[in-house]
Amino acid sequence: VAGAFSSTSSSKLTSDASKVVCRGAGLSTAMIGQKNVFNVDCSKAGSNMLLVGVHGPRIPCEDVYVKHMGNRLYTVTYTVNDQGNYTVIVKWGDESVPGSPFNVVVP
Amino acid sequence: VAGAFSSTSSSKLTSDASKVVCRGAGLSTAMIGQKNVFNVDCSKAGSNMLLVGVHGPRIPCEDVYVKHMGNRLYTVTYTVNDQGNYTVIVKWGDESVPGSPFNVVVP
Repeated sequence: VAGAFSSTSSSKLTSDASKVVCRGAGLSTAMIGQKNVFNVDCSKAGSNMLLVGVHGPRIPCEDVYVKHMGNRLYTVTYTVNDQGNYTVIVKWGDESVPGSPFNVVVP
Repeated sequence: VAGAFSSTSSSKLTSDASKVVCRGAGLSTAMIGQKNVFNVDCSKAGSNMLLVGVHGPRIPCEDVYVKHMGNRLYTVTYTVNDQGNYTVIVKWGDESVPGSPFNVVVP
């Protein structure tokens, strides 16, 4: 069954990235020294793997934590250490979800 | 600059996923109730964004934590709650890194 996530063709059979819904303040603004959070609801998007990446204006994001809350609902927490524009990418398998890449401003 | 990570074409100019090196026990075996760890060295792979996904035999991975240690060296920690075969995917931007997808056994 693990192989179901290793190729695009097989995962596409039951996966629909367009059904993924991202919500939360952490998709638009992030604060240095705080935990920045958003939620990803993949409950209607079939079976696939969530991939999240965060990158800052000069260096990578300090850290990114993806927690599965059950029923393919995820909470993403990340911390930043640089002012400027960050990019948050959310993928469901090989495909970007609606809204991704997100532009996040760190004031 | 944030846009540099939003398209394949621009990031490919300075990114080479084939230069990413993954190491660690967490790429082959994981234990329930423990922190499973591996390292990702992207220091020679140019500029891009690290994406990590972990999926179990039936349900998603409990959680995945990606920490940037500096100089594009990352430590990935994840926890599992299910026996069987897990799949770990590591991407540098849009491209899988050497060895990915990794098949991880949870005994």
